[in-house]
Amino acid sequence: MTTVDDARLAYVALSLLVEPGNRDLGIEVAEHGPVATLDRMVAGRVRAQLYGAAAARLRTGPPLRSAQQAVEHAERMGARIITPLDDEWPAQLADLATISRDTAHRIDRDTYPPLCLWVRGPWELAQILGSSVAVVGARAASPYGNHAATELAYGVADRGWTVVSGGAVGIDAAAHRGALTAGRPTVAVLACGLDRPYPVSNSGLFERVAEDGLLVTEWPPGSLPHRHRFLVRNRVIAAATRGTVVVEAAVRSGAVQTLHRAIQLGRTAMAVPGPVSSAMSVGCHEALRTEGTRLVTGASHVLEEVGSIGVDLAATPRGPVYDHDRLDAKTAQVLDAVPARQAAGPEQIAAAAGVALTDALYALSELVAAGFAIAKDGGYALAPPPKRSAA
Amino acid sequence: MTTVDDARLAYVALSLLVEPGNRDLGIEVAEHGPVATLDRMVAGRVRAQLYGAAAARLRTGPPLRSAQQAVEHAERMGARIITPLDDEWPAQLADLATISRDTAHRIDRDTYPPLCLWVRGPWELAQILGSSVAVVGARAASPYGNHAATELAYGVADRGWTVVSGGAVGIDAAAHRGALTAGRPTVAVLACGLDRPYPVSNSGLFERVAEDGLLVTEWPPGSLPHRHRFLVRNRVIAAATRGTVVVEAAVRSGAVQTLHRAIQLGRTAMAVPGPVSSAMSVGCHEALRTEGTRLVTGASHVLEEVGSIGVDLAATPRGPVYDHDRLDAKTAQVLDAVPARQAAGPEQIAAAAGVALTDALYALSELVAAGFAIAKDGGYALAPPPKRSAA
Repeated sequence: MTTVDDARLAYVALSLLVEPGNRDLGIEVAEHGPVATLDRMVAGRVRAQLYGAAAARLRTGPPLRSAQQAVEHAERMGARIITPLDDEWPAQLADLATISRDTAHRIDRDTYPPLCLWVRGPWELAQILGSSVAVVGARAASPYGNHAATELAYGVADRGWTVVSGGAVGIDAAAHRGALTAGRPTVAVLACGLDRPYPVSNSGLFERVAEDGLLVTEWPPGSLPHRHRFLVRNRVIAAATRGTVVVEAAVRSGAVQTLHRAIQLGRTAMAVPGPVSSAMSVGCHEALRTEGTRLVTGASHVLEEVGSIGVDLAATPRGPVYDHDRLDAKTAQVLDAVPARQAAGPEQIAAAAGVALTDALYALSELVAAGFAIAKDGGYALAPPPKRSAA
Repeated sequence: MTTVDDARLAYVALSLLVEPGNRDLGIEVAEHGPVATLDRMVAGRVRAQLYGAAAARLRTGPPLRSAQQAVEHAERMGARIITPLDDEWPAQLADLATISRDTAHRIDRDTYPPLCLWVRGPWELAQILGSSVAVVGARAASPYGNHAATELAYGVADRGWTVVSGGAVGIDAAAHRGALTAGRPTVAVLACGLDRPYPVSNSGLFERVAEDGLLVTEWPPGSLPHRHRFLVRNRVIAAATRGTVVVEAAVRSGAVQTLHRAIQLGRTAMAVPGPVSSAMSVGCHEALRTEGTRLVTGASHVLEEVGSIGVDLAATPRGPVYDHDRLDAKTAQVLDAVPARQAAGPEQIAAAAGVALTDALYALSELVAAGFAIAKDGGYALAPPPKRSAA
């Protein structure tokens, strides 16, 4: 019998062995759980490609010892490592597993959900991501774009929403500044280790974000911001939030990729228009010419798209708020199989719902995130009727 | 037996009696033809409301004499009056009859097709409207908007398309200037008489348009540009062209109304984005946030929306080019009833198609405009297979 602590540590160990988003590893973990998957990795009983990806790191020492050291390292640097088993884990990240399923015939690797996140800052991650919007865009932003991003992020934050962005100069930095000016937390999702936030010119900003918001990354300390990692990181920004706004972007920019991820995930995709003469608005305009991206000119448009204005956002339940009607067929099927009082295990629920265990696990994590179900006694049960806390 | 000249003069007479777009008059003319309708008007055998609208002008003298004087007046001022019976009549204007039909339960008056047009300039109206785009927008345009309108109109004209706009300062004037700079005709549709083009500050521009393009209006000389007339005029700009581009517009502007007319008519509705901080782009952004309006940043986007680039536009057949597939059910039904060789009268075709005479007449005018049918021996026949002329 493995304990929750064993499983948490196994998640951390796995995340140290293989680069984030790995599809093979994601499927292994969904099928076998983190502890058994780690055993299988060590024993070489996984797909050759997956084993190959981890082989070099496996030789550096026992994975669980590395994981324990990582946890201690995080503590020493005033950070923490969270896994899908932690309360503050943003359950909506599980939606990332659907990208690979939907585009199985296309080469779209490294889109699986994170296995753990390094977090630094005083907020509960899941809680402040419950009502959050990604505001992203070009590094080489124009003064117009910087101004628009700051204004938009200020407005969104001022209405109680959390701004999420990367850590780049330009639009990302402008968005964080806008949110911080509104006195609200902002979340910077990095593509490198917390010990070396990139770029260095944003060091002051990162310190403020760590004090008043959250610095988040999938990569352990020491990881450098390789180009590929930015693209992998983008999926987290898209999945963590209710919608993504691109403020300025050149053609084929990373920000536009984040927008496409948002569309793949069923999140709201938005773009801010700009002067047609500006190269920095070309990516936005192209996105707006394709289906599925909404034009927004400011915070009120953004909130019109992602949620109702006037909702008491301080009382928003943890996790994203989904309407019952918005559940897809399979998730609704699983919900019908969740018992009201005595918790049932995922296998039992999967059998009752008539779906595969993997599908049941994803559906259950979504249902928990949405407040329909709760994790209880090692299984799942229906959530009690919602209460709004005074806080 | 009335002659074509009788009918033409009757159209002119009717246009002098009642303000353009009148729905009751449009229906009368569609049912009885212009000559009989004029007789009915004079005899007071039309709906009281329609008679009332014409009563004062009927008392000024015999309508046909006024019409003859108008034709002579046009000649003296270097202009001409054209009616639906003239070769250069843009048959696509007949689509305007569908607006009233579609929105019969809403109050949407004065949207019926024009009965005659006063034209000044060296081009055949139908021919240069065959491939045309409306470029419209705010009078109080910003330097950005003026620049964008000029560039866009230049690009559209440079590729062989005709620019159509109103006669206002701001975007309208910038669009005409762009087209003229490309050395191509531009069409200014006015909301007043040709003798007093409004505003006076555009006099120089109007002279250039009359020399190198066309000045067009539904109103006889002496008519002043009342506010209501601009809104009535807008329907002609929307109906005459394949699509309407709004470059800059405040909320609830006339340009946005033209855009809505374009949507009602099944034309392509387009808008140019701008800085979110500009009040002059608010109308464009709002239009882009509603269904049915496409974002365009320049001429190539516009042509992508309204037609294929690379088509030899000099060889475009007169009238708008419709695909056979784009014909609506009723029009396709009428097309099936048009004989291949010997012409049949509209009554005969209506009977064969099983549609009302009014519907057959509209369908036939569309089919002629689209090059599917030809007017022949007082009736209609299928058009011979298309040939492209070398010119």
